[in-house]
Amino acid sequence: MKPEALPPGSVIGMLGGGQLGRMMALAAARLGLRVHVYCPDPASPAFEVAAAHTVAAYDDAAALAAFAEAVDVVTYEFENVPAATAAVLAAHRPLFPDAHALATAQDRVAEKTFLRAAGVAVADFHAIDGVGDVDAAIATCGLPAILKTRRFGYDGKGQAKVATRDNLVAAVAALGGRDLVLERLVPFALELSAIVVRGAAGDVAVYDVGENRHENHILKETVVPARVAPETRAAADALGRRIAERLGYVGVLGVEMFLVRDEAGERLVVNELAPRVHNSGHWTEDGAVTSQFENHVRAVAGWPIGSTARTGDTVMENLIGDEAADWLAIVSDPDARLHLYGKTEARPGRKMGHVNRVRR
Amino acid sequence: MKPEALPPGSVIGMLGGGQLGRMMALAAARLGLRVHVYCPDPASPAFEVAAAHTVAAYDDAAALAAFAEAVDVVTYEFENVPAATAAVLAAHRPLFPDAHALATAQDRVAEKTFLRAAGVAVADFHAIDGVGDVDAAIATCGLPAILKTRRFGYDGKGQAKVATRDNLVAAVAALGGRDLVLERLVPFALELSAIVVRGAAGDVAVYDVGENRHENHILKETVVPARVAPETRAAADALGRRIAERLGYVGVLGVEMFLVRDEAGERLVVNELAPRVHNSGHWTEDGAVTSQFENHVRAVAGWPIGSTARTGDTVMENLIGDEAADWLAIVSDPDARLHLYGKTEARPGRKMGHVNRVRR
Repeated sequence: MKPEALPPGSVIGMLGGGQLGRMMALAAARLGLRVHVYCPDPASPAFEVAAAHTVAAYDDAAALAAFAEAVDVVTYEFENVPAATAAVLAAHRPLFPDAHALATAQDRVAEKTFLRAAGVAVADFHAIDGVGDVDAAIATCGLPAILKTRRFGYDGKGQAKVATRDNLVAAVAALGGRDLVLERLVPFALELSAIVVRGAAGDVAVYDVGENRHENHILKETVVPARVAPETRAAADALGRRIAERLGYVGVLGVEMFLVRDEAGERLVVNELAPRVHNSGHWTEDGAVTSQFENHVRAVAGWPIGSTARTGDTVMENLIGDEAADWLAIVSDPDARLHLYGKTEARPGRKMGHVNRVRR
Repeated sequence: MKPEALPPGSVIGMLGGGQLGRMMALAAARLGLRVHVYCPDPASPAFEVAAAHTVAAYDDAAALAAFAEAVDVVTYEFENVPAATAAVLAAHRPLFPDAHALATAQDRVAEKTFLRAAGVAVADFHAIDGVGDVDAAIATCGLPAILKTRRFGYDGKGQAKVATRDNLVAAVAALGGRDLVLERLVPFALELSAIVVRGAAGDVAVYDVGENRHENHILKETVVPARVAPETRAAADALGRRIAERLGYVGVLGVEMFLVRDEAGERLVVNELAPRVHNSGHWTEDGAVTSQFENHVRAVAGWPIGSTARTGDTVMENLIGDEAADWLAIVSDPDARLHLYGKTEARPGRKMGHVNRVRR
């Protein structure tokens, strides 16, 4: 049986008030859905375009309960939603993606264990909860390898490349001694991502796979379609579907992958799941029939997902720090589509906006 | 010299909080511009997606002055802005489109006089300020003809078709006895509209001309491109440019036209100007590189206008009254792009949303 679709005028509760929440709120408004944003930061970019907002901490149980009562469904724009917060909300209202998807994506070991069980290739990995795990981890992953915190890493934070056993022992201590994971270094040719969307009724679609280029561990550019073999595009599509289906996922899911090229050809190794709309999917606002933001909103509202068909070859460029100061040159280019997030302070490394360039 | 472009974060003051204001606010947010909506109706659809709003009457001088102080530029979503309101605001801040454009478009006699002077064909017309003008008006326009109020008409309101002198005398009395205009009946084959945008620096572009179908005097459907001769499309483009340039116009301008087909071929007769974004331009949200809403925002902010290139053949259908109840069927159609305005009450004749269907 299909789940009931929330009628227009319904309220989507959104945890997190950054640019992802803002773009989801804009997409929801277009569909006649209202958004209530919950975020501790009183200067959240999403507040200005949302029908309602709550400024409160993520562990404020009373504020969370009042928020849940005021909305029809809850979703989020970031994967580090505390499990306790998710549990409080899920007790009142449907939460999409659900607590299981969230917990899986929050923990690198749980994530890789799930992916491997789903038949998806991941880098060899070994959990580390103390120096006693170091030798077994090296035996599994080889050296050099990458040591990461199991939880709460982003934009290259919470990780270290290690070349020797001594390096690893030191890095384990530096990263807190426990709740870590060692991962085999993947000699990748490209970083790719698949943006998957699955509706509450089980309808699923994958946008054309994109090719990502990072600078200083921050996404700088996504090129769609990725410059890979057609078989690789099909493989990315297939694994995206499989992951979303195995998770019983509802919403947009970002699947970050490495492309390995060797004598056997191209193969994909999944690096990480993001249980939310994803920066590498921003091209869909101008280069696809339905944006990832609209499709996430549709999915969590129980609506059928929209066409993910690509309408042109698209390059998405992030505007980081003071790069957004070039806004006038960008809007003077007839091929450029500017998106700014309404942030007032252009700190180094801060994502201020992005530009899509579409060739139709 | 080019006017200075308002930087991101600047505030656009918007008079009127209906769906047009709402869609402009959504477009502005995408560009990092903030919108402050001024509207007497506390349930205005635009409030929910605007950074700030004021609920006050259009003749509340204190509220208008405070509003003007809070914004960087003022625009509006409806042409019936009282002249006194425009004057108060323009004394504080730039007003686009300006008071001259507004005054011209508000009065059918001023509008047709301007158009004729600009070399644009209009129907024969004659001002009527009492029964004493009836015979001269009939001599100019013939019978049957259409009697209209000079000001404040919309969706077929404030007008009457008259077949005889007696009809006309009665209709003059029924419409208030003065500030009326008689217009020659134009035997049109189609109703067309050109959506023109002109930037503060004088850059101007016209979207591909659309063909409009009305039901009960309310726009029901716009088909783009209009099914007319290529020369007619070029003529619509040229007259749109000419009108915007002669008015020194800044912003989006809707030009409603009749297409007359006779033995000499096709010719255009301009019926009315709308000094604002226009319902027949809603197709641009999904069928053009830059929507009319974004281009209006760009123009009033002093930014260069964006490409008006069409990306596909588009049919825009208005959802009127309870037609919006079909939302689930519409979003289940992969070719349909739904836009709802967040209105809670579906009164008969009320515009609740629209659907764009694009063939690429």
